Amino acid sequence: MTFNDIKSLLAPNKSKIVLLVMDGLGGLPLKPGGKTELETAKTPNLDRLAAEGCLGQTLPIDYGITPGSGPAHLSLFGYDPVAHEVGRGVLEAIGVGMFVNKGDVAARGNFCTVDKAGLISDRRAGRIPTEEAAPIVERLKAIQLPGVTVEISHVKEHRFAVVIRGEGLSPDLEETDPQKLGVAPYEVKPKNTSAKKAADLYNQWIAAAREILKDEPKANALTLRGFATDPGLESYASRYELDAACVAVYPMYRGVAQLVGMKIINFAGETPADEFDALGRVWNDHDFFFVHIKKTDSYGEDGNFEGKVHVIESVDEALPKLLALKPDVLIVTGDHSTPALLKSHSWHPVPFLLWAPDAARTDSQQQFGETQCALGGLGTFHALNAMPLALGHAQKLNKFGA
Amino acid sequence: MTFNDIKSLLAPNKSKIVLLVMDGLGGLPLKPGGKTELETAKTPNLDRLAAEGCLGQTLPIDYGITPGSGPAHLSLFGYDPVAHEVGRGVLEAIGVGMFVNKGDVAARGNFCTVDKAGLISDRRAGRIPTEEAAPIVERLKAIQLPGVTVEISHVKEHRFAVVIRGEGLSPDLEETDPQKLGVAPYEVKPKNTSAKKAADLYNQWIAAAREILKDEPKANALTLRGFATDPGLESYASRYELDAACVAVYPMYRGVAQLVGMKIINFAGETPADEFDALGRVWNDHDFFFVHIKKTDSYGEDGNFEGKVHVIESVDEALPKLLALKPDVLIVTGDHSTPALLKSHSWHPVPFLLWAPDAARTDSQQQFGETQCALGGLGTFHALNAMPLALGHAQKLNKFGA
Repeated sequence: MTFNDIKSLLAPNKSKIVLLVMDGLGGLPLKPGGKTELETAKTPNLDRLAAEGCLGQTLPIDYGITPGSGPAHLSLFGYDPVAHEVGRGVLEAIGVGMFVNKGDVAARGNFCTVDKAGLISDRRAGRIPTEEAAPIVERLKAIQLPGVTVEISHVKEHRFAVVIRGEGLSPDLEETDPQKLGVAPYEVKPKNTSAKKAADLYNQWIAAAREILKDEPKANALTLRGFATDPGLESYASRYELDAACVAVYPMYRGVAQLVGMKIINFAGETPADEFDALGRVWNDHDFFFVHIKKTDSYGEDGNFEGKVHVIESVDEALPKLLALKPDVLIVTGDHSTPALLKSHSWHPVPFLLWAPDAARTDSQQQFGETQCALGGLGTFHALNAMPLALGHAQKLNKFGA
Repeated sequence: MTFNDIKSLLAPNKSKIVLLVMDGLGGLPLKPGGKTELETAKTPNLDRLAAEGCLGQTLPIDYGITPGSGPAHLSLFGYDPVAHEVGRGVLEAIGVGMFVNKGDVAARGNFCTVDKAGLISDRRAGRIPTEEAAPIVERLKAIQLPGVTVEISHVKEHRFAVVIRGEGLSPDLEETDPQKLGVAPYEVKPKNTSAKKAADLYNQWIAAAREILKDEPKANALTLRGFATDPGLESYASRYELDAACVAVYPMYRGVAQLVGMKIINFAGETPADEFDALGRVWNDHDFFFVHIKKTDSYGEDGNFEGKVHVIESVDEALPKLLALKPDVLIVTGDHSTPALLKSHSWHPVPFLLWAPDAARTDSQQQFGETQCALGGLGTFHALNAMPLALGHAQKLNKFGA
């Protein structure tokens, strides 16, 4: 049984909830029986919260399933990630400040390098730096297509996002990245007849772009992936009666937060301390705060165990700034696991810490780590339950039934 | 995946199951890291059962959701509380021995005090004592309405229950209690046109009652809430092939037991020892026994931590009377948590103890408490699974599949 009518119980109050997500937090020991990244990190502040609060571990999607960042975040936000699939193109586009409305078709693009025969020799155009790539994207803005509007925006390094707006467009398009070298980028193919118009337009756009790029030494071609339109998710304001804000450095996470109607907070700097400072500046304006730390995942993906440990320690070190704000409910967790050992996202349960000084049960765990979370008082649960738990502990829900 | 066809596996035998519910059992420490009410209580008998049996913790409804008493009990009884919402009026009425059949409309009533302008000055008529309120209810029995039958019964103090029986009545009526002072009681309003007849009848009844009450010093008016009809739940006899009995002091819990066809046992006294004595007297007549202890919840609601501790201790002290009957399966749990700290029902998981000397697995827990239950061998599970666990351990279920 799953309770699906949270909305009927909402009882807004002034208490404040912080959802602190360390991306890819869950890890693995380098050797069986060893310590994970989180267990290795010195985290006196998180350990105190663990002792005072309650631990558990979440399944982002389900047992054995490795999530992408989009579905993993939707799950934490309380939206069934299977029912609400959000295309990567949409996340990329709105993450850099473009709008994607219902009916628009967004895509994420990669510059790549092709040889004289047109075959891909580098799928990421030598990870061309932002300062070289941004001016190239500017030149692509000149492309116009009949009857529709095209917007393009640079994201980072070799990555950009495109949105085509017009009537009768469908995002059911196949990706053009062959995901291997020695092959030419594919054409955009429609998955069904209703997507033919969008495919034609994207192919026209690619042809015009290739003409502009043809003399570039590295970024002389491109691939497009993740075609998608606005999934039309209900906003936090409507779904939870929460005025939510997002403090995140990376576009994609600002994007997914914006999809559920969070206010995106702009700030200078990239460190956890910078993020907590930004949180402090908007503390009085909102009642729910999603704070996203990216680099735990980046180092995990790089296989850099020590790097991930240090990011966790830097979050712990900066945590007093957040605690000084006196949140009523603080959840510290990850969206998924990214063990340095595997150099990729994984299916392992994700450590979850719930601290709510006025209303949280204490369990017997004294430290924030995977081993402790597996024995925590919250048990093992789907991440989809994180928001009901947060709302319950913030006493923002009425009783169900008499 | 949930197994929904228990009925196909039923294999009745003579083993006896006791479901001992301490209402609102789950608690919280007064300070983070401290002990809960249950952990504070000295419970040598329950601790022995915990050591010999298996612990766990239940979610009455779902993560973060605080249940009312009705849905929380339905869940323990194995009826999906979201699919089967039972109106409070029905629980109140059948709790004092009235019948509520399909099509009848029951309501719970409160006497209140109104001033000369007809505005409420006390929503509970000064919590008028039972000996004053009961004769007033008797006088209201004189009211007759055209084409229908009206029954009214006193419940406790300022509370009573009304049932109107007739053709074409719908319980989709809005409550008349404005839930605040300085406002007149509302009229009964139908939520849709099919409820107009019932609304008219209830308004006629209220007008006649007001006439009878008008010179009362305290109970000179009334409000009605929780309009409802029989939800038509399947009986324990049909659903589980169990001959079930209920030993409970409070009307509401006798009411919910009667809804699922349990035999309500009448007995003198109010203590846990009195209840276990009553259990002993009917032990040979039934094979399932629901025993309900109310005061753990009452003290929790009052914020009386010590009071709740003492009730738990009094249950433990009387427990040998129950154990002497040699139940095959004994479950000791709550319907929900009512931490004295919060002075209300809460969403926290509920301690669950399963003792079945012939068939229960033992876990590593030696004491009955929230911290131990969170580490128990049964894990964290929806209360809806309590009945299948009971039936399984009583060996009343056949194997599923070959």
